[in-house]
Amino acid sequence: MVRLDAPNIYVILDIPVIRGAGREPESVMEQAAGGGAKIFQLRYKGVDDGVLYEYAVKLAELARKLGVMFIVNDRIGVALAAGADGVHLGEDDLPISAARKIAGENFVIGASARSLEAAIRAEREGASYIGYGAIFPTGTKSDAVPGSIDTLLEIARKVRVPVYAIGGINADNVGKLVSYGIRRVCVGAGIIAAGDVYEATRTIWETINNEENLK
Amino acid sequence: MVRLDAPNIYVILDIPVIRGAGREPESVMEQAAGGGAKIFQLRYKGVDDGVLYEYAVKLAELARKLGVMFIVNDRIGVALAAGADGVHLGEDDLPISAARKIAGENFVIGASARSLEAAIRAEREGASYIGYGAIFPTGTKSDAVPGSIDTLLEIARKVRVPVYAIGGINADNVGKLVSYGIRRVCVGAGIIAAGDVYEATRTIWETINNEENLK
Repeated sequence: MVRLDAPNIYVILDIPVIRGAGREPESVMEQAAGGGAKIFQLRYKGVDDGVLYEYAVKLAELARKLGVMFIVNDRIGVALAAGADGVHLGEDDLPISAARKIAGENFVIGASARSLEAAIRAEREGASYIGYGAIFPTGTKSDAVPGSIDTLLEIARKVRVPVYAIGGINADNVGKLVSYGIRRVCVGAGIIAAGDVYEATRTIWETINNEENLK
Repeated sequence: MVRLDAPNIYVILDIPVIRGAGREPESVMEQAAGGGAKIFQLRYKGVDDGVLYEYAVKLAELARKLGVMFIVNDRIGVALAAGADGVHLGEDDLPISAARKIAGENFVIGASARSLEAAIRAEREGASYIGYGAIFPTGTKSDAVPGSIDTLLEIARKVRVPVYAIGGINADNVGKLVSYGIRRVCVGAGIIAAGDVYEATRTIWETINNEENLK
């Protein structure tokens, strides 16, 4: 059973970025899981539900085999129908409270929050975890708004659910987050477009799990 | 209780078309319901779930007051969360069988079908009704594929669920469909962008309910 409140690598399986790197999402999931990643999110903006559902069914099945958590971005209908463990909702998606109502208590519902206020609201509405960013500049999400480490730490102090840093995180810069005690990280291109998916994940895993990196 | 298998007017509340006509979806629903329409579908392509959900919640509530059926286009998560009676799924959306699995037996799931084969498949997967078209040329749905009255009649003979004609139907041409025995019609611009929503609906209602129009 994957615990959201452990030090974790949460991999964003952005399909266009994975394809751009000449890879398949299944092999990326396998290699990153081998390197220590425990949570995976399918993200494919702009496609019809039918296409997203096909990806989601395959990845949900593989995730079960690998013993990792599988989450679908934005679309709760696809997430529920494909047997995913959860859905991740942005501030423009279905309200968390509405999603919680139809998904039940055990479904994971993640929420993006760009401010302390949004994070507190998301927790109150029933979010299972908060994603906060962009903690570093990112090219994967073109509409990302810059965030700060200070705000992330403040959110982490004020909400009880786990908070994940997201945006531009990779094997080279994750140590900076760990030096602030931040050990739950969402990684996109830093893993899925890395020279070696397994090695990049492994390096990040070792960095977030090395107590000596904590100040 | 609205029966899908009665002669029915099913109004497509296409938000951009309604706005283009200088109207509000709530007043269009009220006037069309007053004119005899019993089924309403919220259609708003391209917007985020958060926006669609706001429309859906308001229209679902109004539909309950008016005693009409309310359906959301494409997105089952929004439909379920907003308390709609059903969802309408196109051929590129979530598969009908996957939608049925998460929505339960009593939820209305409509399916677009462009051929007899697609209609039979949709019924087998659990569709509550079939929408077939475009029966007339339409400007509301830019990617509509032309259909034929012959194919619609064949579908209606071969499936047990109600079949609805869709595409370019209005008060002037609905009589042609009725002369073939087709009395279940989906109407978009023909009602929502008509000079008078109530009058257009009333005229269509009288045409589909006048037994003398049947050959």
